[in-house]
Amino acid sequence: MSKELVMGIDVGGQSTKLGVVNAEGEIIAQTVISSLQDKLIDYITDLTNAINDLIAKTKDTGEVKGIGIGAPNGNYYNGTVEHAPNLKWSYDNSGNPTVVDLANLVRSFTNLPVTVTNDANAAAMGEMAYGVARGMKNFIMITLGTGVGSGIVINGEIVYGHDGFAGELGHTIAIRDGRQCNCGLKGCLETYCSAMGVRRTAQKLLMTNPDKPSKLRELDPEKISSKDVYDAAEIGDEIALEIFKTTGEILGRSLADFVKFSAPEAIVLFGGLARAKKYFHEEMVAAMEENQLSIWKGRIRVLYSALKDSDAAILGASALAW
Amino acid sequence: MSKELVMGIDVGGQSTKLGVVNAEGEIIAQTVISSLQDKLIDYITDLTNAINDLIAKTKDTGEVKGIGIGAPNGNYYNGTVEHAPNLKWSYDNSGNPTVVDLANLVRSFTNLPVTVTNDANAAAMGEMAYGVARGMKNFIMITLGTGVGSGIVINGEIVYGHDGFAGELGHTIAIRDGRQCNCGLKGCLETYCSAMGVRRTAQKLLMTNPDKPSKLRELDPEKISSKDVYDAAEIGDEIALEIFKTTGEILGRSLADFVKFSAPEAIVLFGGLARAKKYFHEEMVAAMEENQLSIWKGRIRVLYSALKDSDAAILGASALAW
Repeated sequence: MSKELVMGIDVGGQSTKLGVVNAEGEIIAQTVISSLQDKLIDYITDLTNAINDLIAKTKDTGEVKGIGIGAPNGNYYNGTVEHAPNLKWSYDNSGNPTVVDLANLVRSFTNLPVTVTNDANAAAMGEMAYGVARGMKNFIMITLGTGVGSGIVINGEIVYGHDGFAGELGHTIAIRDGRQCNCGLKGCLETYCSAMGVRRTAQKLLMTNPDKPSKLRELDPEKISSKDVYDAAEIGDEIALEIFKTTGEILGRSLADFVKFSAPEAIVLFGGLARAKKYFHEEMVAAMEENQLSIWKGRIRVLYSALKDSDAAILGASALAW
Repeated sequence: MSKELVMGIDVGGQSTKLGVVNAEGEIIAQTVISSLQDKLIDYITDLTNAINDLIAKTKDTGEVKGIGIGAPNGNYYNGTVEHAPNLKWSYDNSGNPTVVDLANLVRSFTNLPVTVTNDANAAAMGEMAYGVARGMKNFIMITLGTGVGSGIVINGEIVYGHDGFAGELGHTIAIRDGRQCNCGLKGCLETYCSAMGVRRTAQKLLMTNPDKPSKLRELDPEKISSKDVYDAAEIGDEIALEIFKTTGEILGRSLADFVKFSAPEAIVLFGGLARAKKYFHEEMVAAMEENQLSIWKGRIRVLYSALKDSDAAILGASALAW
């Protein structure tokens, strides 16, 4: 008898990862496509081709029964991706991010049931089912990727809110009148504590410390990645170390405020930047504790996803499809 | 046959209001005591006397079956009031706010079942059952009283969090490194948008505008109340009008960030300061919209409690006792 399988898809700002998952929560096949297409039709073509390839590749093992998608600004209630500034293919002809009927489009081209949620919600579901948040009923997942996303779990359930868009903590204001964000606001947490934010902090620190030598000066300032900064930190580069300290401090302050909302048991960090934890964890926790109410001082754990790469998001998205 | 009744108690920073409530949600008798006692034993004595008086007064109508209490830093899980900086009787001998076993104390002296919750949670329950939030499943209640409290409702339920303390939005940071708060942090929303905050803004504006005439100059700066500022605004006092505008702007910015957490249908404002809505509403909404993500611009209603005085809190607290 053919096994039942589902597919989990994690739409990130740079790439989209697809995985076929079995009932035991194992990813038995996966693939990646770019998320950088300018046109919706091109992105959907690549995506549905990748879906069909994976289905074909796993058809001897079992049948894919449905697809769960985690995407930035994904809406669980409507199956849409709405006004996602980091996804060019979601822009309309006037150059503004608009509403993409993602669930219906993928359903049309695959004939499978499709459910959409916010990418960070998907990651939170993955952590709750298979990761460091197993057994937790109240935690906040913060994804430190191209942008900063969040998935909030209260009483064991993802918070969707009135309209399905709850959990946009990456766009809470970290620094009033601070850096311009893609979303139109200024000073969003995302402009400091994402891959983009790290690049901007690098550019700023290189500029304001012209006499300080740094490996990062050898790179195109427009292309500095978190990985570049991490590699520089590994060889003791002072500017690189300072970048992570600043990033940690800003993140920690915001985390303190998030705790005041839902009093979680833990905060779970996830995403590319989280890999540099040894360089920002101490400053982050210090800033969080300094800005914490006495009832929570020393009581809120900050954990890091231990699931491989984007597995949390793929597994979480796949959980939607069962 | 004797009717079933319950008692709702609203512990505020200045006064504690008690009401006996019938099954129809009507307050059939009420009284008030001061919350300003220095010693716990004095406060509990006054409180239990007031409870017993009200029970005696309503015994011909029915029997009080239980007591629900809404209090600052009230903990639903433990029945305690924990580290409440605005309640002097909760302080220990070293002068620090400590843990008061309020439910057990009141139970000991009344022989009635007692349930405690955060004062703002109680107000939110009252609004959901009897007020402007009737029928809503997702809203945030902000109480603008001596301090700033909050009750968060998600999927029709109060958010208590892992430890029972969720919803301390009055202590999220409105202005980084801003005014010193009683809680130990700096720049908490409460230091700007509470009765105390309005007084501090008044003191500051009177000081920084020495040449501007104002009715408020006739008052002791340490005793300026929201009501004084309101009265001055009513006769066109420029400083008073400016105080409310500033207050509204700071509140609006914070509300925008709160929406990013739980995507509520509405925000409900309540408490003494809310009575001055005509003087701060416009600036508040403008600041909220300016700091809002496009998905929520123009979509989140800000409502004001229409329940009389502290009825929402008394009714909400009483709902705990059924």
